[in-house]
Amino acid sequence: MAILYHHPFCPFSRFVRLVLAEMGLEADLIEEKVWERREGFLTLNPAGTTPVLADEQIAAVPGSIIIAEWLDETRGESLGDRRLLPQSASKRVEVRRLMSWFAEKFAEEVSVPLVQEKIYKRFMPSTSGGGAPDPALIRAAKNNVKYHLQYIGYLIRQRKWLAGDAMTYADLMAAAHISVVDYLGDIPWTEDETAREWYARVKSRPSFRTLIADRVIGMPPSAAYADLDF
Amino acid sequence: MAILYHHPFCPFSRFVRLVLAEMGLEADLIEEKVWERREGFLTLNPAGTTPVLADEQIAAVPGSIIIAEWLDETRGESLGDRRLLPQSASKRVEVRRLMSWFAEKFAEEVSVPLVQEKIYKRFMPSTSGGGAPDPALIRAAKNNVKYHLQYIGYLIRQRKWLAGDAMTYADLMAAAHISVVDYLGDIPWTEDETAREWYARVKSRPSFRTLIADRVIGMPPSAAYADLDF
Repeated sequence: MAILYHHPFCPFSRFVRLVLAEMGLEADLIEEKVWERREGFLTLNPAGTTPVLADEQIAAVPGSIIIAEWLDETRGESLGDRRLLPQSASKRVEVRRLMSWFAEKFAEEVSVPLVQEKIYKRFMPSTSGGGAPDPALIRAAKNNVKYHLQYIGYLIRQRKWLAGDAMTYADLMAAAHISVVDYLGDIPWTEDETAREWYARVKSRPSFRTLIADRVIGMPPSAAYADLDF
Repeated sequence: MAILYHHPFCPFSRFVRLVLAEMGLEADLIEEKVWERREGFLTLNPAGTTPVLADEQIAAVPGSIIIAEWLDETRGESLGDRRLLPQSASKRVEVRRLMSWFAEKFAEEVSVPLVQEKIYKRFMPSTSGGGAPDPALIRAAKNNVKYHLQYIGYLIRQRKWLAGDAMTYADLMAAAHISVVDYLGDIPWTEDETAREWYARVKSRPSFRTLIADRVIGMPPSAAYADLDF
């Protein structure tokens, strides 16, 4: 069976868990604390980041988008209608554009600083940068999230899913990143009703169940987190 | 003809110029000053970043890696041996891993801060963040570049090109990012002889000629920059 090296609150790892579940694939999950820079893990991925998918066919596939591309190349056609990257080259551009929007822009402006400050720093030794969260970074991230919700709302008022008529990698990348911020209670759901409705739709999928069960020790999730009718 | 919205010292734009030249494709170049946040450009790419490739087939393809994927999907097969993303799924993983290494890690640690501090800030109004470069950021970037050169040397001692036997997107992404740092004179070429030899090989390709001619007004390139036998 494939092995996914992940962290339960790494949004990029959550994306891959959603993708595997949507494709009906299973993987053993191994939790990796990237700040420990474990040697065996650095051999799999010299960049030292989660997620990494390792299976028997191939040594290691590192990085959420590279895993998504590889899964599409090796399994995409057999998924038919449920394929997460559409067939046409121009539709693929739009899926990749929005997948990158959330994996780069939303990550940099919202999810990565919040996870780093509020979760990872609790568990990292002070020699690796652990300690108290930086309130200025948290404030900035909580402010940035608003215009991303408005952008989701803007898109969903024109289309059924973020990148078009069908659910794609774009929806799963966005939802994975939002899910960790939602755990922390930092999504202002009143900001955009259409964005909230879209997220409720993604969150109610069976693929989401495994994420909802994860907990940070000593830090319970927000009231909205596990509630499908938040 | 296609149009490439770019900046002459944006390393991601340089990558696309190299790719187009290697594929024998032409594009009209339009210089975009992203800090001006021009409305027509934001319509093409809401993320507001260069490069964007626009042609008649498709509205706009934003982002260096998305452009690379799209060009491979639409033209890759016709390139035969000169294809820049190999046929096999596992080899594609290695090309994408190293393309991302330079587009994410090298960019964040080296090329983006150096271009931002030393070039863009000269031309940006102070209201958009222009002004004097930050010496601490420059010092950090100049220090980081060393281990990237060592990593290139380590790979090239095992393989002919960064990702295997053939030149791929990985070499072009790495060389594009290195080229702007080289212009600034911030590549310590004595650090790794194998890395230097690999870069001389990429730089001597005809596709590189167009980059070499670009100049920052009032800031001549380093002595090594245009010298193929540096």
